[in-house]
Amino acid sequence: MLTLYHSGLSTCSKQVRLCLKEKGVAYESRYIELWNYENLNPEYLKLNPNGVVPTLVHDGVPLINALAINEYIDDAWPEPPLKPADPKERAKMRLWTWTADDIHTAVMLATFKALLTDALKGLTEDDIEAMIKAIPVPDRRERWRKFTKGGFSDEEMMAAEAKMSHGMERVEAALDGKDWLAGDMFSLAEISMIAIVNRVKEIRPSMVDDVTFPNTNAWRERIMARPTAPEIFFSGTPETPPRPKVKSISGLTRDLKIAS
Amino acid sequence: MLTLYHSGLSTCSKQVRLCLKEKGVAYESRYIELWNYENLNPEYLKLNPNGVVPTLVHDGVPLINALAINEYIDDAWPEPPLKPADPKERAKMRLWTWTADDIHTAVMLATFKALLTDALKGLTEDDIEAMIKAIPVPDRRERWRKFTKGGFSDEEMMAAEAKMSHGMERVEAALDGKDWLAGDMFSLAEISMIAIVNRVKEIRPSMVDDVTFPNTNAWRERIMARPTAPEIFFSGTPETPPRPKVKSISGLTRDLKIAS
Repeated sequence: MLTLYHSGLSTCSKQVRLCLKEKGVAYESRYIELWNYENLNPEYLKLNPNGVVPTLVHDGVPLINALAINEYIDDAWPEPPLKPADPKERAKMRLWTWTADDIHTAVMLATFKALLTDALKGLTEDDIEAMIKAIPVPDRRERWRKFTKGGFSDEEMMAAEAKMSHGMERVEAALDGKDWLAGDMFSLAEISMIAIVNRVKEIRPSMVDDVTFPNTNAWRERIMARPTAPEIFFSGTPETPPRPKVKSISGLTRDLKIAS
Repeated sequence: MLTLYHSGLSTCSKQVRLCLKEKGVAYESRYIELWNYENLNPEYLKLNPNGVVPTLVHDGVPLINALAINEYIDDAWPEPPLKPADPKERAKMRLWTWTADDIHTAVMLATFKALLTDALKGLTEDDIEAMIKAIPVPDRRERWRKFTKGGFSDEEMMAAEAKMSHGMERVEAALDGKDWLAGDMFSLAEISMIAIVNRVKEIRPSMVDDVTFPNTNAWRERIMARPTAPEIFFSGTPETPPRPKVKSISGLTRDLKIAS
């Protein structure tokens, strides 16, 4: 009845897994291994024509895009609410869920470079061509082409750094004297932004260091202390199995059972 | 009590103006002239720290970001509803509002090149430096820097074209046998996407021509036939005064009266 196709610790997978766990909604977890491009398997593309994770399938209807999915979860299971009741605080919340999505593009570039460069060594030139050809969305195809054929330019990396850094400064300022980003409650704003802040802390720790970003780090610790956090943010759980060491394209053609 | 700072026919201004008119909510219109960079005036930046239009000020509280503002309008004035009642249709609607925002970056590049190149001739080198320095958000600063110092690369323009084109194909497919993008109603999906489709039709008519995109054009005509359309999409109304012929930076320093 409720199935989540996700890839564990990927940013958008974490956002939706955290939302479901905070609601206490039970779901079947279906792991999609990005390292062998199961997300580009033709069977998966029938569910998610963008070829990305996550996809939530509810009563046979696939829902895509982490922002839309998390709003859906809060619409379909209203308790406990993850949106402030006041419309103005809700608008603030949506500015943050949008901001997380906006910064995500920059985070992706930096993540590719920091975490995928070694893993790429498993791919031959032919593998890379087959993988790029399977990507259904032009800007994602272009990003992978660039990354696998020489890497991102210094200009692109600097722009990504500036965007991430500016985002972290905004978070720090917004949390001045406040526990949460929007209203007086843990909301979808936290769920969207913690995945971004955690990733930035992982790949660029100096952009969100303890001394310069005390509000952000205290906020992060409040979230990481929640009962839901261990299942979401740490590897080695059933939903966060270890990645293969190197990439392959075996997921493009393997017989992926997709049942909704 | 309700004031909209907007710039008439700018994509995001159209989205919020259309939403307010569809609700029949009265507001004070405050025109912000992008051609002289009033959006980067220090007084305006106090309301909108990203230096973009629109900003909606309600009971003294500024709200920014067209996506968040339009959801706010529907939250604060529920009638007539602009979100489908069914959560799954609502998720589809939010996929479209997100998609409009996603394509908007590509549309901006193409719009800059098509509509601003001549207007730039009004700016001196010093003007350009002062304007770039006033932009508070790194990726917007970078975009203007590139545009004013040599223009976007062929690679960037091709990526933007591919993204717009792919977006138009998605709209056409989604409207196959359907009047509206999400559910059986005119919704925020239409409000977000029509601004994008209209702009693409203006600057790249072949990407949404009548023959290849019959569904999209019929949908567009349905929207353009609504009583709200003339005030939103046509120039020469009180909210859509003519632009100056060339750009200047007079808006950066002029005494802009901002009252909420």
